[in-house]
Amino acid sequence: MGSPQGLEDENGSSSSMRTAETMLRLLPMALCVVALVIMLKNSQTNDFGSLSYSDLGTFRYLVHANGICAAYSLLSAIVSAVPRPTTMPKAWTFFLLDQILTYVILAAGAASTEVVYLAYKGDTAVTWSETCGLFGGFCRKATESVAITFIVGLCYVGISLLSSYRLFSKYDAPIGDYKNKGGIEMATY
Amino acid sequence: MGSPQGLEDENGSSSSMRTAETMLRLLPMALCVVALVIMLKNSQTNDFGSLSYSDLGTFRYLVHANGICAAYSLLSAIVSAVPRPTTMPKAWTFFLLDQILTYVILAAGAASTEVVYLAYKGDTAVTWSETCGLFGGFCRKATESVAITFIVGLCYVGISLLSSYRLFSKYDAPIGDYKNKGGIEMATY
Repeated sequence: MGSPQGLEDENGSSSSMRTAETMLRLLPMALCVVALVIMLKNSQTNDFGSLSYSDLGTFRYLVHANGICAAYSLLSAIVSAVPRPTTMPKAWTFFLLDQILTYVILAAGAASTEVVYLAYKGDTAVTWSETCGLFGGFCRKATESVAITFIVGLCYVGISLLSSYRLFSKYDAPIGDYKNKGGIEMATY
Repeated sequence: MGSPQGLEDENGSSSSMRTAETMLRLLPMALCVVALVIMLKNSQTNDFGSLSYSDLGTFRYLVHANGICAAYSLLSAIVSAVPRPTTMPKAWTFFLLDQILTYVILAAGAASTEVVYLAYKGDTAVTWSETCGLFGGFCRKATESVAITFIVGLCYVGISLLSSYRLFSKYDAPIGDYKNKGGIEMATY
C-alpha cells in the first residue's frame, strides 16, 4: 500500500547522493580492515619475553569491533548502492545500526587509547610499568591501529548524522506545520 | 525577519514537552554531580600505600568530563525551560553540543571502564598487577562512579536523539516533497 508514493530516491538527481553515501560507507570499511590487520599481526618477542595483541583484552575488543564494523560497512554500502526507495523501516534500521556502530567504534578507540597511554607512561601509584620501554615496536603498531580506528569513528559520526538527517527529515517539526516550516527555512537561509 | 513564523513552540500543547526535556536534562546533571563527588572523594590509604583518583589520568578526565557535563546540563535545562521559539541557530547549537557531550561522556566511561577492568584483573603479559586486591574500597567507589557515568551517557544518547529529531524534522526529506512525505507516513503507520 502506498509504496509508489515513497519513491523519493528514484529521481535522477539522487543518484550522485547515493554514490556519495556508498563511498562514505566503503571508506571506513577499508580503514577497519587496515586497523584490524595491523592489530592482528601485532606481536613482538625479545629478551624480555613476548607480547601479542591477544594478551590485552581491550585490543581483542578493538579487533572484534573493527571486524564487525568492516562487515557492517560493506553490507550497508551494498544496500545503499542499490537504487531502491528509502522506506521508513529502512531509514530506522540504518539510523539505529549506524548509531550503535558509532558508539561501539568510539568506545573501542577510547578504551584502547587508555591502554596505549598506560603502556607508554605507566602509572607508579598502581605499580604499572611502562611496557613500551621494552616493547616499542608493539606500542607503535598499536598506536597506528588505534589512530585508524579513530578515523573510522569520525567517518561513522558523519554517517550517523547523515542517517539521522534521512530519518528525521521525513517527520514534521514537533509542533509545527508545513507553513511554519517554510517560514523557518526562509528566515534562516 | 520572519521570526513570528517560527513560533512553533508557543502552542499550549508544547509546554509539557518542554517540561519533559528540562527533566531529561536535569537528570544527567544530578547524576554527573553524584559521579563527580564519589570520584573526588575516592582515596584509600593502607599499609601498602595510598591511592587517590588523581593518581590515574583517566579518572581525572572522568571528573572533568562529569563537571563539564553537569554545567552544560544545567545551562541547557535552563535554556530549554524558557518558553521561547526554537530557531534554527538554537536547534543547531543544541544539536552539536549534545552530540559532543555524548561522545565525551561515553569516551570517559569507556576509558575508565578499561582502567577499572585492569585494576581488578591485572595483566600478567605486561606485568600490570591487580591493584584492587590491595585497594578494594578504592576500586568499588571507582566502579560506582563509572557506572553512574554510563547512565549519564545513556541519558545523553536520548538527549542527542531528541535534539537531532528537533533539528532535522525542520528540514524536508532529501529529495521528497510534501506529498511524498504524507504518502510515506500513511504507508508506514
